[in-house]
Amino acid sequence: NKSKKEISYSNRGMTLEDDLNTTNAYYLANNIAVIHKKPTPIQIVHVDYQSRSTAVIKEAYFRQASTTDYNGVWDGRYIDFEAKETKNTTSFPLNNFHDHQIKHMKSVVEHKGIAFVILRFVKTDELFLLKAEDLFFYWERMINGGRKSITKDEIIKSGYSLKYSLHPRIDYLEIVRHVYSL
Amino acid sequence: NKSKKEISYSNRGMTLEDDLNTTNAYYLANNIAVIHKKPTPIQIVHVDYQSRSTAVIKEAYFRQASTTDYNGVWDGRYIDFEAKETKNTTSFPLNNFHDHQIKHMKSVVEHKGIAFVILRFVKTDELFLLKAEDLFFYWERMINGGRKSITKDEIIKSGYSLKYSLHPRIDYLEIVRHVYSL
Ligand SMILES: [Mg+2]
Ligand SMILES: [Mg+2]
Repeated sequence: NKSKKEISYSNRGMTLEDDLNTTNAYYLANNIAVIHKKPTPIQIVHVDYQSRSTAVIKEAYFRQASTTDYNGVWDGRYIDFEAKETKNTTSFPLNNFHDHQIKHMKSVVEHKGIAFVILRFVKTDELFLLKAEDLFFYWERMINGGRKSITKDEIIKSGYSLKYSLHPRIDYLEIVRHVYSL
Repeated sequence: NKSKKEISYSNRGMTLEDDLNTTNAYYLANNIAVIHKKPTPIQIVHVDYQSRSTAVIKEAYFRQASTTDYNGVWDGRYIDFEAKETKNTTSFPLNNFHDHQIKHMKSVVEHKGIAFVILRFVKTDELFLLKAEDLFFYWERMINGGRKSITKDEIIKSGYSLKYSLHPRIDYLEIVRHVYSL
């Protein structure tokens, strides 16, 4: 029973980031790809060097990332993506992305890297992969005065559904292989 | 006068990281490559949410990186490297590298990425690019009971000298193009 199987594999309170980290660890352990999440950028203001070995950061601030969160290499190809969640059910708000992330993905595509986003609708636990090129289209539409979100219908039509599984949790590279005909 | 020119371009109290960040900014602005330094990995223990907009990290610790510091894409190719400095003058200590960084570079090479290290001798301000494959050789030699450093002569022979210039500060991709026959 297929639907039963899908339910049993579904996301149980894990964040999309957790699932992607688990997936990337699987890809690495199974020699499929080398993809890592970048650390959160922090602006460090004060560090207490109590001893040489235990430096304690006492004051620091979150900085905005200048790139996407995930990148790495898969069969010689450069892979770059961002993962975002929304609690909305009928559309994905574009304010989840920052202007410099869009700019970064445009540079990646221009330099022949593979760039995409993984979108999760939290309430229904649905996952989609959207090529950066398609995201740019919706982004430009917003810039030109259009709607500030991508409708779910548009995501279904221009994106690709991703399923949860056991190993790996979210086999996004299988979809990338299909989408980019690799 | 060539030696005079080299002196005028030389590093004036800039760290290798500063120079590489400036170089990467140049590559990005001039549409040559998209290469970024990864943020320093931090273990956050306590955050003070004084207001929604100003979260202050009050306790955090430096974590060891699981990858190298720099990566990105250049003409569709995955580029990955680590930069290290030493105050030694006759050899480069291998304890500048961590076991997981070596492991990471081995994975990158296995997945057809381009991996290397940029080494700087601080006192003479000399820079070298060493292919990861050559670093592995010296690393294995150490593991097998050999010396815990790479002699400067070995670096001169197996590595490639990098020069400072104005724009970009350290044109390492030009050397990569030569070394990997791209
Ligand atoms: Mg993010
Ligand atoms: Mg480092």
